[in-house]
Amino acid sequence: MGERSIRVRVPGTSANCGPGFDTLGIACTIYNELELTLRERPGLEFFVDGEGGDNIPLDDRNIVWRSVRYLLERAGMAEKFQGGVIRMKNDVPLSRGLGSSAAAIVAGLKAANVLVDNVFNRRELLQFATKIEGHPDNVAPAIFGGFTVNIVSRGRAQCFSFLPKLRLNMVAAVPDFQLSTRMAREVLPEKVSRQDAIFNIGRASLLVAALCKGNEYFLRQSFEDALHQPYRAELVPGMMEVFSAARAAGALGAALSGAGPCLMAYVLERDRCAGGVGEAMVEAFRKNGVNAKALVLGLDTRGAHIINE
Amino acid sequence: MGERSIRVRVPGTSANCGPGFDTLGIACTIYNELELTLRERPGLEFFVDGEGGDNIPLDDRNIVWRSVRYLLERAGMAEKFQGGVIRMKNDVPLSRGLGSSAAAIVAGLKAANVLVDNVFNRRELLQFATKIEGHPDNVAPAIFGGFTVNIVSRGRAQCFSFLPKLRLNMVAAVPDFQLSTRMAREVLPEKVSRQDAIFNIGRASLLVAALCKGNEYFLRQSFEDALHQPYRAELVPGMMEVFSAARAAGALGAALSGAGPCLMAYVLERDRCAGGVGEAMVEAFRKNGVNAKALVLGLDTRGAHIINE
Repeated sequence: MGERSIRVRVPGTSANCGPGFDTLGIACTIYNELELTLRERPGLEFFVDGEGGDNIPLDDRNIVWRSVRYLLERAGMAEKFQGGVIRMKNDVPLSRGLGSSAAAIVAGLKAANVLVDNVFNRRELLQFATKIEGHPDNVAPAIFGGFTVNIVSRGRAQCFSFLPKLRLNMVAAVPDFQLSTRMAREVLPEKVSRQDAIFNIGRASLLVAALCKGNEYFLRQSFEDALHQPYRAELVPGMMEVFSAARAAGALGAALSGAGPCLMAYVLERDRCAGGVGEAMVEAFRKNGVNAKALVLGLDTRGAHIINE
Repeated sequence: MGERSIRVRVPGTSANCGPGFDTLGIACTIYNELELTLRERPGLEFFVDGEGGDNIPLDDRNIVWRSVRYLLERAGMAEKFQGGVIRMKNDVPLSRGLGSSAAAIVAGLKAANVLVDNVFNRRELLQFATKIEGHPDNVAPAIFGGFTVNIVSRGRAQCFSFLPKLRLNMVAAVPDFQLSTRMAREVLPEKVSRQDAIFNIGRASLLVAALCKGNEYFLRQSFEDALHQPYRAELVPGMMEVFSAARAAGALGAALSGAGPCLMAYVLERDRCAGGVGEAMVEAFRKNGVNAKALVLGLDTRGAHIINE
């Protein structure tokens, strides 16, 4: 035949989680699916259903295909498989801070890796994905699932994934405009005060401890940030009001999702207030002239995985 | 009688723990004991056994007595009890970064609180102690015991204390010179790079997650710091060599204890290498012209407590 196929599903992700700038990330129950067929003969076919159908490049610049090629080259299989078919079904909104680019990269790497008989493990896929994406905060939870702590140590990305002791819902308020990560990075200062650094070290540590131990009291004090959100507020009209509305409706806290513009509230599942939190966030956005929709998500616990029909 | 007595024991503490600058702190099995007698008539008597017998003030400037007075005033009992007897038995070395000043403050507050029938709870004692000491990182573990994450939120100190899932030993290498916290603060810059802040957010989060979940692999990557140790290295000759010696002898990692000059290595109890780690640290100090002694400590899990004979 000279042709192999596989289907994978990859979760959308939310990086930073408030205080964990460039460190914390969470995998959510919203997915992109990829069916990849590798062929020996050159030539590419694309079929895109859902998010991005109109405006992602459908040629060899496509990020899924570039990730497939990246893996095939590392596996020494780039000569053998020169073309293929990419079928995508995308639920993760594009360029909103929900890790759509990370999901595409991880989907390409994961699918290609399965088709070359899993020559690489997940830690190795993390290095490849970090290299392609530039930072590990979204690709790591997309690969491993769960709540993740991510560092880069001596050039190597490291991801510790764990499951919180409390069941959480994430309520995403997704505005109808896009924000480039590049622009969201440019508003950040190169230097920060020692006090602001300590502010975030404390909240990030408290957030991780409270999630691991299941402590609601401390979770409610853990989502604040002094290092990026204050600077990015100007890029997301009404950000602080949406945070306040989420908390008033019962959320533990709320944060900018990745570089935004999506805002993410964290809710205890047992509080059953996710629907109301979403409505309150959308309404607060509306008062600031922003159309948004709410998505109530759970924690994805698997990360990128094969779909068996 | 117009006289009441109580004995309390308070653990020494190690703040920062590497990346958790002004945030993380741990209580250790080394103690100061205080027997406090409150009298209605004025007049003070002091008896000091152990550390500090020669050079702590033995009058109303004494930090234990000032803490006693602070609590009595908050409790409305300062008129009733105007004098007393303070008997101290101090094992915590003075001005080395092991929380001797925090232990003295907490001992005074705790003993006085018991003698006025525990009108304040531990969270309230934490506010008082933080006010007297200026920051919560040592007083919090001295009060609560265990491994602590400490923040100040809207002017209020908050402490989350937890027990790690792995049994740890702390090996303290205590140099024979003192270092004032004020001097150790003066070498720190007011501004830090965003990258250094992220470095510490990542390691502190990873340290907390690895302790909570009992993950040795990630613990070994968690003790590095970019925010204070590099600047303070000049104040503690041989600091980096002592860290390397500790790791080479089997420690998970090592860090400056508080503002130093004591250095603290973290060891898995099951590795049974604490003695060798201590010897290696003392030897590395010696090569740098510093006389030091090693103390092998465990985790104190109780915090300040009454001693019943």
